[in-house]
Amino acid sequence: MEGLVKCSANYVPLSPISFLERAAFVYGDKVSIVYGDTRYSWRETHWRCLRLASALSQMGLHRGDVVAALAPNIPALYELYFGVPMAGAVLSGLNTRLDAPMLAFLLQQSEAKIVCVDHQYVQLVLKALEVISAAKAKSPFLVVIRDSDQGAFSTTQEIPPGCLDYDGLLEMGKPDFEIIRPLDECEPITVNYTSGSTGTPKGAVYSHRAVYLNSIAQIFRFEMSTMPVFLWTVDMFRCSGWCFTWAVAALGGTNICIRNATSKAIFDAIFTHKVTHLCGKPTILNMIAEAPLTDHRPLPSKVDLVIAGALPPLEILNKVHELGFSVSHAYGMTEALSLVNVRSLMDEQIGMPHCEGICNVLMEGVDVKDPTTMRSVPADGKTIGEVMLRGNTLMSGYLKNIQATQAAFRRGWYGTGDLGVRDPDGYVRLKDREVDTIFNGEGDAISTLEIEAVLASHPAVQAAAVVGRTEEDRSGETPCAFVKLKEGCSASGQEIIEFCRGKLPNYMLPGSVVLGDLPMNSTGNIHKFVLKDKAKALGSLFHSNGHLTNGVCEKG
Amino acid sequence: MEGLVKCSANYVPLSPISFLERAAFVYGDKVSIVYGDTRYSWRETHWRCLRLASALSQMGLHRGDVVAALAPNIPALYELYFGVPMAGAVLSGLNTRLDAPMLAFLLQQSEAKIVCVDHQYVQLVLKALEVISAAKAKSPFLVVIRDSDQGAFSTTQEIPPGCLDYDGLLEMGKPDFEIIRPLDECEPITVNYTSGSTGTPKGAVYSHRAVYLNSIAQIFRFEMSTMPVFLWTVDMFRCSGWCFTWAVAALGGTNICIRNATSKAIFDAIFTHKVTHLCGKPTILNMIAEAPLTDHRPLPSKVDLVIAGALPPLEILNKVHELGFSVSHAYGMTEALSLVNVRSLMDEQIGMPHCEGICNVLMEGVDVKDPTTMRSVPADGKTIGEVMLRGNTLMSGYLKNIQATQAAFRRGWYGTGDLGVRDPDGYVRLKDREVDTIFNGEGDAISTLEIEAVLASHPAVQAAAVVGRTEEDRSGETPCAFVKLKEGCSASGQEIIEFCRGKLPNYMLPGSVVLGDLPMNSTGNIHKFVLKDKAKALGSLFHSNGHLTNGVCEKG
Repeated sequence: MEGLVKCSANYVPLSPISFLERAAFVYGDKVSIVYGDTRYSWRETHWRCLRLASALSQMGLHRGDVVAALAPNIPALYELYFGVPMAGAVLSGLNTRLDAPMLAFLLQQSEAKIVCVDHQYVQLVLKALEVISAAKAKSPFLVVIRDSDQGAFSTTQEIPPGCLDYDGLLEMGKPDFEIIRPLDECEPITVNYTSGSTGTPKGAVYSHRAVYLNSIAQIFRFEMSTMPVFLWTVDMFRCSGWCFTWAVAALGGTNICIRNATSKAIFDAIFTHKVTHLCGKPTILNMIAEAPLTDHRPLPSKVDLVIAGALPPLEILNKVHELGFSVSHAYGMTEALSLVNVRSLMDEQIGMPHCEGICNVLMEGVDVKDPTTMRSVPADGKTIGEVMLRGNTLMSGYLKNIQATQAAFRRGWYGTGDLGVRDPDGYVRLKDREVDTIFNGEGDAISTLEIEAVLASHPAVQAAAVVGRTEEDRSGETPCAFVKLKEGCSASGQEIIEFCRGKLPNYMLPGSVVLGDLPMNSTGNIHKFVLKDKAKALGSLFHSNGHLTNGVCEKG
Repeated sequence: MEGLVKCSANYVPLSPISFLERAAFVYGDKVSIVYGDTRYSWRETHWRCLRLASALSQMGLHRGDVVAALAPNIPALYELYFGVPMAGAVLSGLNTRLDAPMLAFLLQQSEAKIVCVDHQYVQLVLKALEVISAAKAKSPFLVVIRDSDQGAFSTTQEIPPGCLDYDGLLEMGKPDFEIIRPLDECEPITVNYTSGSTGTPKGAVYSHRAVYLNSIAQIFRFEMSTMPVFLWTVDMFRCSGWCFTWAVAALGGTNICIRNATSKAIFDAIFTHKVTHLCGKPTILNMIAEAPLTDHRPLPSKVDLVIAGALPPLEILNKVHELGFSVSHAYGMTEALSLVNVRSLMDEQIGMPHCEGICNVLMEGVDVKDPTTMRSVPADGKTIGEVMLRGNTLMSGYLKNIQATQAAFRRGWYGTGDLGVRDPDGYVRLKDREVDTIFNGEGDAISTLEIEAVLASHPAVQAAAVVGRTEEDRSGETPCAFVKLKEGCSASGQEIIEFCRGKLPNYMLPGSVVLGDLPMNSTGNIHKFVLKDKAKALGSLFHSNGHLTNGVCEKG
């Protein structure tokens, strides 16, 4: 067609930087961030991010350079999610539960030029920098974030020699800085390391376009309206704070930052600031449900709580509902910018936690495919395939790992590694992680998630994880359950197996139950590979009578 | 950064076609369209649009070809907004109030290969095709949409020889048709002719990307949530139905189609179908406010009503509010995909109808600039400049009119031709259309909109338009008001001028008031250029005493 143009008037690369600029204009006087006694307006946040971007540029940062950050959910970290991209750079938010060698590895892998560190983690990062120096590699420049909320700076807040402090950095910057926008909306904005439950963490890179569209998708998924009050209980470093860093700015909302998400801090914040939304790991539900009565405060209005991960027991869920929270459950992964789908747990059959429904607006496709033929499995609710995704809200790939990137994107789809079925109504139902599925050698693929859901519904069970256990005289595996009981509760392994009978087909009944603590990784997920080793080691214990039927090992 | 890929898994060209596919999947059984006794589900609408796209392809339509449509708000027109793009083609929805020569001109300008016409307009289009044939040009193929809602097909619904009927076309199509998606999201999806109030209509071309993002922007602007019930009172051919054609699909909502938007049809539809949203021209407000009591039906719940254009008198607004409607006012234009901004009229000072606020999410920038220097005017609430826009929700340009396109897009901004000021709080306030502003020769730029707002607040005035009137012995212009009185009301021109005194500064008082009918164009806008000619012709009438002070001409 003739007469048309694509120019900077009618084509602007999609970037969440626009959300901040608009918030400063439309919601300039409204509160952007609250953290203890600290309180900023959107105009101030915009101004601070401009100074931050300006100072970073002055330090010699170039387009595409990486800035790392290690901090809890404090205002400075929120500002970094805007200020670093506004300098044309890429932010790598690091998990505060990592150790020095892993931090050293990730800083080197991303070639971070600068690392901004909360005072609480300075010693840890100094150790990591020693590891890097010992390897004769170039260390990133250290910027320390001192915490105004802690009153006078304590000795833990001293700035090591040769380092800058964050506020000093901001003072260097000029608020009339000209933002270095992406030339192409597919340029990277953040690196998000996976938790590494199946090996070394991989750096999932998000683009400006992807996070812009996913911020909008989050607003739809959470049915948020203008000026929400968002309580930061999800880690900002986790999938870029599930993109709420940017989505809250798009809506001119208020960010309530807390250093430690204790039950008291959560209830206080909700009551004081009229919080409308919070989200995070399922342990938040436990925290709320098990909060001492003295921590409780009435909810000022509807509070939406979205959790991602395995569902905690029904009892916990019911308790949180009774307290007035509106709980939803999300399915997602780092590679899909956190969430694929969110479903309410209010009206649904919460005993079936793995019927995940379908994708929300902006995701182009969710399917279950045979990974060899790439054809959709029949919609019979039985045939298992791999859950696959397509859309603009997926990562650009794994940083410096083209093999892993190419393995993830197969013939136009992203393979999640999760197993699922297609129900006759077209809905996708998750069955298990591919690597965790138990194949019993008789043609059955057993979903450990389904067994875990039944175990979790036992009144004495706090948490449960099931892995496959190989037996020497059998070709397949049997389910081996690791169960942590609630404090003050008791149940034998045999009782737990009996509890499952009738709720599960016989071939899915746990062959063994091991009571005890469960090994967790830094994100609160259970380390199944540790349990698999444990299960292997159990082998010989049960071979007294030649083969094993529901053998039980207590406190193994 | 290494390790990243841009592939069909993580990059899908933005297109509203995805909204329909998702609606068919997520809301498959939910009602998509209601029209009289006709009722479709989203699965059926998807299926019908696939067949439509398939049939169009079979007819030899190629990527980028234009299909024109001339129809009221009926299901077939809604389907064309999806089916035509799904065939890779571009839809040109034509104004049903145009005459045959203008239709002939627009069909030729867009080189439409096919024109789909509602039975009501077949004779009109046949006349237009005769004009095209007479010019020895190639006529588009005619498809007649018969109206199942009208019971047995009447003689007006007969299909002219050599033509197809729309249902027959659909029967030709295959529902397993592979959609011809845009290769680039900036490819055109619709041509939208301006009303031509300042000359020949220009065809504003929208891209897949622009309408995808604007559909989302509309959802934000109207604060719509999942499954709205949308009553079609805005013409679908008007800015592609302000993108609600696609936005309703994105939310799995229900489209309530009515052939004629009478007050009875509006109240009945709202009551019967529990309508949540409707929009259109300000005359809808008049229609509702002046509806006979026998047409009234109680509103089942909150009904959001957005109008775009000049505001009707306060009295009308108040009446509509009293009936329970939640009214908002929008500022926009065809080139900006209809709307720049929407503001509620509930809590605001509705006596100030031209304080337009600022842009909504997804528009990158709204500013008031000196069109020569392209610098923002000072935010003093006084200095007048041109309102300019930037963002992804603007047209790609005017079809086959690169001069007009280039004139519209100037140094990174789209010039609206509207005059405005920047208030000290940063907000943009509209003053007037540039071409309509009155320059009094003493350095004052007089906003005709402000005078019109005061005139409209007179209890006897139904509508008013003000233009500049040149006097032979003066270098500048004076405001000349054309006023239509309400039926049964009377007021003299002098009374009207007295009414304005005190409400307007002296230099803005109308110099003359002409009572009578107002000339309207096909979109319901007042033809100011006709009034300007009239005002010119008045000149000699008032020159008895050498110069003119508030001379009044009644029924001129």
